[in-house]
Amino acid sequence: MVRLIILATILSLTGALAPAWAESDVLAQAREIFTPLPDKPVFKPDNPANAAKIELGKMLFFDTRLSKSNVFSCNSCHNIATGGVDQNRFSTGHKWQVGGRNAPTVLNASLHIAQFWDGRAKDVEEQAQGPILADVEMAASRDLAIKRLKSIPEYVERFAKAFPGQKEALTYENIANAIGAFERTLLTPSRFDAFLKGDEKALAAQERDGLRLFIDKGCSGCHGGAAVGGNAYEVFGLVNKPDNLTDTGRFGVTKNEEMKYVFKVPSLRNIELTYPYFHDGRTFDLDEAIEIMGWTQLGEKLSEKERDNIGAFLRSLTGKQPEVTIPILPPSNKDTPRPDRS
Amino acid sequence: MVRLIILATILSLTGALAPAWAESDVLAQAREIFTPLPDKPVFKPDNPANAAKIELGKMLFFDTRLSKSNVFSCNSCHNIATGGVDQNRFSTGHKWQVGGRNAPTVLNASLHIAQFWDGRAKDVEEQAQGPILADVEMAASRDLAIKRLKSIPEYVERFAKAFPGQKEALTYENIANAIGAFERTLLTPSRFDAFLKGDEKALAAQERDGLRLFIDKGCSGCHGGAAVGGNAYEVFGLVNKPDNLTDTGRFGVTKNEEMKYVFKVPSLRNIELTYPYFHDGRTFDLDEAIEIMGWTQLGEKLSEKERDNIGAFLRSLTGKQPEVTIPILPPSNKDTPRPDRS
Repeated sequence: MVRLIILATILSLTGALAPAWAESDVLAQAREIFTPLPDKPVFKPDNPANAAKIELGKMLFFDTRLSKSNVFSCNSCHNIATGGVDQNRFSTGHKWQVGGRNAPTVLNASLHIAQFWDGRAKDVEEQAQGPILADVEMAASRDLAIKRLKSIPEYVERFAKAFPGQKEALTYENIANAIGAFERTLLTPSRFDAFLKGDEKALAAQERDGLRLFIDKGCSGCHGGAAVGGNAYEVFGLVNKPDNLTDTGRFGVTKNEEMKYVFKVPSLRNIELTYPYFHDGRTFDLDEAIEIMGWTQLGEKLSEKERDNIGAFLRSLTGKQPEVTIPILPPSNKDTPRPDRS
Repeated sequence: MVRLIILATILSLTGALAPAWAESDVLAQAREIFTPLPDKPVFKPDNPANAAKIELGKMLFFDTRLSKSNVFSCNSCHNIATGGVDQNRFSTGHKWQVGGRNAPTVLNASLHIAQFWDGRAKDVEEQAQGPILADVEMAASRDLAIKRLKSIPEYVERFAKAFPGQKEALTYENIANAIGAFERTLLTPSRFDAFLKGDEKALAAQERDGLRLFIDKGCSGCHGGAAVGGNAYEVFGLVNKPDNLTDTGRFGVTKNEEMKYVFKVPSLRNIELTYPYFHDGRTFDLDEAIEIMGWTQLGEKLSEKERDNIGAFLRSLTGKQPEVTIPILPPSNKDTPRPDRS
């Protein structure tokens, strides 16, 4: 709680400085808060990347055989075509069940401090183990996933190449390690990165105005860093309680009362594409999402102009989307456990 | 019925010639029955292709907004990653319903005489209109599909460029025309094409033996042409009735008694990938599928060696799969009808 109060104080102080800024100050100030995306993917030391692993991870990301029914792949809910999400409020999974939280984007996700809205997985490698097993998502089991893949000689070979020197390369952990390595390549540099690197004109005047407001109002107090978010936890309703908030968020993980209604701050990169917004997908409308944040987190009723300028800045975060060629997957055979819709 | 009897007679005569063939005769004989895939896509005269239309068609092929729920795209059931099918017995659609027939591959489909197992659509353009509206598949309506796309300025522009000179470019028919144009690009040349063009060594000895058997036994009587099938209708059970055959096939379209249990002969290109087999996906096992065909269509119990050689030939039909980069789809906005899972 102390942390939250300090944060709120910083935010209000920052806000007070706003009108006096000169144009070039925006860049200087932004550089203290944000960093450009890394030029290259950052891999995990204990999951070093190689081309074979990234390609294998891509194959697995698109392979519906990791779901019990053979209907869903990672890409079903984290669709590369649509900002790394499915653009639905809650994702549809096994037997038409729905998840309880909005599927977060896979784009730039490796830069976050943790994964899932409640931060219950430490990185994308750990996260990738979740949905395959979740009853309402892919509904498989560790055993089924491994049996399916082990039955396919090409996968056995590819795991051996991707994880050289490991006696047992095709493990459940390595399925997720390969997927995680692929996901780490999904970075989407935008005009904002060019701006941060010194090209002030990379953002239009309204976008720069929006950025200034984003800093002045205090949005950047939480949404900072390389992913413009993703690097902190925060209570949803710091100042005013949002309507219809039932999900207690990180409390479910830590059982710590101070974590009630606390969620990982989402990245705002590609926010234009990753609707609907918030952990519960409560709105499809970015303008409304900005207003909600202004009110619940900052206690401000933003003017239409302020909202539009902040929106213009946020839309400048739509980056170059990954160019992903659809992998061609090796066929199943007699030994491969069959699709099971039950 | 007369046609079937003539066919059966031809098949048995062809079969009688087999043992005397010399190696090079196989190529000569094959050239009378099969043709290589066209080097370039063949477009429909009244749906001329241009780069804008093909790209638009690809986008629509991957856009889940053509389904009521925003869960399914064309690619869900005709997956480019897996031979242009979903490799499931029946596809899963809206509200976890299942279709009544196995999803046929989209690869090389434009070369068929007609579309669907019962040939009820004349070409891929007409076919593409079906699944979007089918209750158990994408469950949308013409109106919903058009409203969704019309709400998105980028799509409006892309339709205008894809269908130049048309006053009303964004129509339901043009959604399907664009998808059809994209689908016509999905050709998968294989070693068999190199063989047909004169490179006899493009097929291994066992594959050539299999090809000879495929011709001798009479398989090629139905499975001929560029797609090794797809260019004729035939009764399932020409000689012996298959087990558990309930679907009356083309009878449902023509109401002609002679069309009972008649289906379009499927293409065997990429057959290794397009399991499970037959209109009802009754087997996942290509060897078993070959045995079923031998018995039901030719009245023969194939030996294990015959079956394996034919299988080797059929696996040589696995072609170079299309290299498809995932399209980046424009976002929805306030005017876009929302996903509806009901």
